[in-house]
Amino acid sequence: MSEPVPQETQAVPPAVETTTAPAPTAEGDAPAGPSKSELKKRAKEAEKAKKAAERAAREEEERKKREAKEAEDHAKQNYGKLPLHQSQERNHRKFLKFSELSPESVGQRVVFRARMHNSRAQGAKIVFLAFRQQTHTLQGVLVVSGEKDENQVSKQMLKYSQLIPSESIVLVEGTIKSAEVKSCTITNYEVGIHKLFTAVEVGDLPFSIDDASRAEADFEKAEKDENLQYSRVALPTRLDNRVMDLRTPTNQAIFRIQSAVGQLFRDYLNSQGFIEIHSPKLQGAATESGASVFKVQYFNGTAFLAQSPQLAKQMAIAGDLERVYEIGPVFRAEDSNTHRHMTEFMGLDLEMAFEEHYHEVLEVLDEMLKSIFKGLQTKFSHEIEVIKKQFPHEDFLFLDETLKLPFKEGIKMLKEAGAKGSDGEELGELDDLSTENEKFLGRLVREKYKTDYFILDKFPLAIRPFYTMPDPTDDTLSNSYDFFMRGEEILSGAQRVHDPAFLAERMRSVGIDPASMSGYLDAFKLGAPPHAGGGIGLERVVMLFLKLGNIRRASLFPRDPKRLSP
Amino acid sequence: MSEPVPQETQAVPPAVETTTAPAPTAEGDAPAGPSKSELKKRAKEAEKAKKAAERAAREEEERKKREAKEAEDHAKQNYGKLPLHQSQERNHRKFLKFSELSPESVGQRVVFRARMHNSRAQGAKIVFLAFRQQTHTLQGVLVVSGEKDENQVSKQMLKYSQLIPSESIVLVEGTIKSAEVKSCTITNYEVGIHKLFTAVEVGDLPFSIDDASRAEADFEKAEKDENLQYSRVALPTRLDNRVMDLRTPTNQAIFRIQSAVGQLFRDYLNSQGFIEIHSPKLQGAATESGASVFKVQYFNGTAFLAQSPQLAKQMAIAGDLERVYEIGPVFRAEDSNTHRHMTEFMGLDLEMAFEEHYHEVLEVLDEMLKSIFKGLQTKFSHEIEVIKKQFPHEDFLFLDETLKLPFKEGIKMLKEAGAKGSDGEELGELDDLSTENEKFLGRLVREKYKTDYFILDKFPLAIRPFYTMPDPTDDTLSNSYDFFMRGEEILSGAQRVHDPAFLAERMRSVGIDPASMSGYLDAFKLGAPPHAGGGIGLERVVMLFLKLGNIRRASLFPRDPKRLSP
Repeated sequence: MSEPVPQETQAVPPAVETTTAPAPTAEGDAPAGPSKSELKKRAKEAEKAKKAAERAAREEEERKKREAKEAEDHAKQNYGKLPLHQSQERNHRKFLKFSELSPESVGQRVVFRARMHNSRAQGAKIVFLAFRQQTHTLQGVLVVSGEKDENQVSKQMLKYSQLIPSESIVLVEGTIKSAEVKSCTITNYEVGIHKLFTAVEVGDLPFSIDDASRAEADFEKAEKDENLQYSRVALPTRLDNRVMDLRTPTNQAIFRIQSAVGQLFRDYLNSQGFIEIHSPKLQGAATESGASVFKVQYFNGTAFLAQSPQLAKQMAIAGDLERVYEIGPVFRAEDSNTHRHMTEFMGLDLEMAFEEHYHEVLEVLDEMLKSIFKGLQTKFSHEIEVIKKQFPHEDFLFLDETLKLPFKEGIKMLKEAGAKGSDGEELGELDDLSTENEKFLGRLVREKYKTDYFILDKFPLAIRPFYTMPDPTDDTLSNSYDFFMRGEEILSGAQRVHDPAFLAERMRSVGIDPASMSGYLDAFKLGAPPHAGGGIGLERVVMLFLKLGNIRRASLFPRDPKRLSP
Repeated sequence: MSEPVPQETQAVPPAVETTTAPAPTAEGDAPAGPSKSELKKRAKEAEKAKKAAERAAREEEERKKREAKEAEDHAKQNYGKLPLHQSQERNHRKFLKFSELSPESVGQRVVFRARMHNSRAQGAKIVFLAFRQQTHTLQGVLVVSGEKDENQVSKQMLKYSQLIPSESIVLVEGTIKSAEVKSCTITNYEVGIHKLFTAVEVGDLPFSIDDASRAEADFEKAEKDENLQYSRVALPTRLDNRVMDLRTPTNQAIFRIQSAVGQLFRDYLNSQGFIEIHSPKLQGAATESGASVFKVQYFNGTAFLAQSPQLAKQMAIAGDLERVYEIGPVFRAEDSNTHRHMTEFMGLDLEMAFEEHYHEVLEVLDEMLKSIFKGLQTKFSHEIEVIKKQFPHEDFLFLDETLKLPFKEGIKMLKEAGAKGSDGEELGELDDLSTENEKFLGRLVREKYKTDYFILDKFPLAIRPFYTMPDPTDDTLSNSYDFFMRGEEILSGAQRVHDPAFLAERMRSVGIDPASMSGYLDAFKLGAPPHAGGGIGLERVVMLFLKLGNIRRASLFPRDPKRLSP
């Protein structure tokens, strides 16, 4: 098959029509029988009129020439709107990424695609443009030049550049220069523009990138300064127009961090001999609790959306996969409208057979989280700095050797600091922690141990799921743990009961009929090694590490009881 | 908090009761008035009887001593059933993985956890056991020893070892020796057993690992040999008992390969500047086609399960994420009961803004797939060999420079080889390919170009979705492509229409009301760069690479119209 032939790439503009004023006529009707002096006078006047007409015609011609000269646009091949991009041609040119600019770039002619961020004229012959690529903006300069070379910039081109709507996608050719720039993120280079084409033109915008990128402090400053007129963009407006919102440098950075968390999670676990599994989200029966499960119409029957991969990953262990992890969606039909709940979120789950003690697993989880924190702080410092501009926060603190606090010890710290139970009563050693007390404990721990990250181990048995293994010496406690970041739980896990008879006993003790979960029990009748695991909420880790304040900011297209789109 | 105190780790077996035969009594009733000779005779007999009794008593005592000596089990601390593992203690011992055995292991005392695969006695004093860890089996040898050291193996221990049910999880201590072994996968080492404990005892099995591991050729052989009695394990039986089925070496290897495909996919794309995204599976509206979408009861309303991340990944591009991929579940409510359809499968999707030509994206997809094939063949040769034993197949063939065949060229090859359309009519240049013709083309290509992998480019526009960009010079064609492995499509993709007005026009041309998809259109009104992408079915790649014949074999817990568990 033949290669596609490039189509006409530039629509020819309609020729400029100049309206010319009609030249005055030098003709008149001659009356019969005039006197000689009269004739002479007339001849003189006629001569005068003729000269005037000739002068007018001369002037008119000069004006025409001048106008035509002005109308001529020697730069018209250097700008304009491109036709629809249908992959008409391929020139194998290398396109510049702003992030790759370096001292070697200076003097180089480059081509790049970018968003038109904004423009600002300086007098009649210079326009400054800001071009944006993800977290970077680069200044472009258009200067009208007299020279008629191929890089000529005309007044028309200057005017065109100012009319390109913000957020349009432009194709730019120019030369990189050293510069001192204040209004762009790239402060040491700018591009002298030779060519400027609009590839995709954009219409009305729901809000501006600048407004959507401001920190709370900016708005507070604006309230005291009447020269600053900033519009706050509310979270629901952002989420309704998420495509626009995602373009802010903050969001560009957040979703690089989100991607990195998953990658660092896998990298660490792969190095420890784990394999990745994918378990089905469509379930024949509700797995954990019937109350918060979504029902699916499944042909002529009903299915349920998995609330966690708990059973599947335990079955993988019973199936000898030994060490498994899964990154997948988790569905919770809970009508919770808080800053930290969504109906669908990403679970980073793992499960691992161990040899001697469930602390082997706890330690893998701990090392994995520390390797995430370290990886983010070392490889994503640019992104963290970008996010801090909009969401200022103290760097996430964690210790080389993680603090592992027995649950009882945590309760003791809280009691000593005067914390009460949710009912206002004295805190008991076997009571669950309220969200407020979790946060309080986080502050106490930070003060005492200088860390935003710690582990609570040995939770009371009664407040954990039935499949949690009791402590071997104190059956009010269990081999279970929670991990905390900035005072909020991000990981929950435990050694699981792997013995089918004991599992049935545990079910009965919490009022579950073992017959109703025979599928779960059957997996253990075939023999499962001692195992433990845990699950992390991806968005929660991102939110807490970056202190975003709302989990929706850490989710590409968040879902909650009131939001199913976009 | 104090460390948990280890519980009693060894239940004391009940003392063996030996039943002793009553000793013959030396007493008799003496009749009145016997003669002297008679008395003498009696006295002699009495003496004789006494001696006999004494001898009998002596013999009895010796027998008792001997029996007691035999009953005494000096090895009883070396075997038995362990109590429930509740993480009682931690000794930080290193546990052996069979895969790590090396010449340095010889002579080392090791401890390991494994499945009891099978056992075989040789005479009264030797038992050979096979222990299994994932894809490896290791021979263990128990020899009854006379020495009374701590490593003593008793007859009782020997007997115990033979009664451990298959698939039980055992804890073994022993010494690695060089050996020549035929019946295990590890042929150059065995372990001399010192200790053997059952950690988890298993009851009835639905089928044996050996039966579940056999190749079709084994069964064919068995049909001709009456000494071979093999049971075929049907696929539904396997899937009903997937935990058991997963333990076959074949499945252990398949799910390592499945995990590796995802990892290699990500590794390549990460190296090309992609980021991973996670898009919601709960959708407010059906995304592509209303017919094959699952409905979810969403609080008081209805949601739909995403049939692909198509819209979300395109929105991410419009949101300037530039290059994104997603690995996530894809749901299809199609009542297709074939070897290659599931209602839920893993989609490996990517989308990428490009500069000049959609072939930039096609080339990224191609390089990504080749890096998967290469990675599997170089790093997972052990797993591929294991799988070949049950599913024999020719190695997957692919070229350094991938064959890119225009669709028209493919049709031409088929026509020249005598292929017909599904209606028996002549194949047209713009006809869709039937599954049969796809396979036929795969065979023709393999024959002519020596490759199991190729690309068809420039599909007819009419057989692609409305969002496919038409070819710039021939509007019956499109900028779209399919990738094939062994004659089956594994990836479908295209340049997308990024212009909202043209997109609306394309919708109308295929009978879709643009108002019904305003959410989709809105994303493009904010300006999206030219972009293209594609989606791969993970399980399909695994099935075709390894020639497994049924997609369910490449899915951990497959879902189809008739299967929702386990």
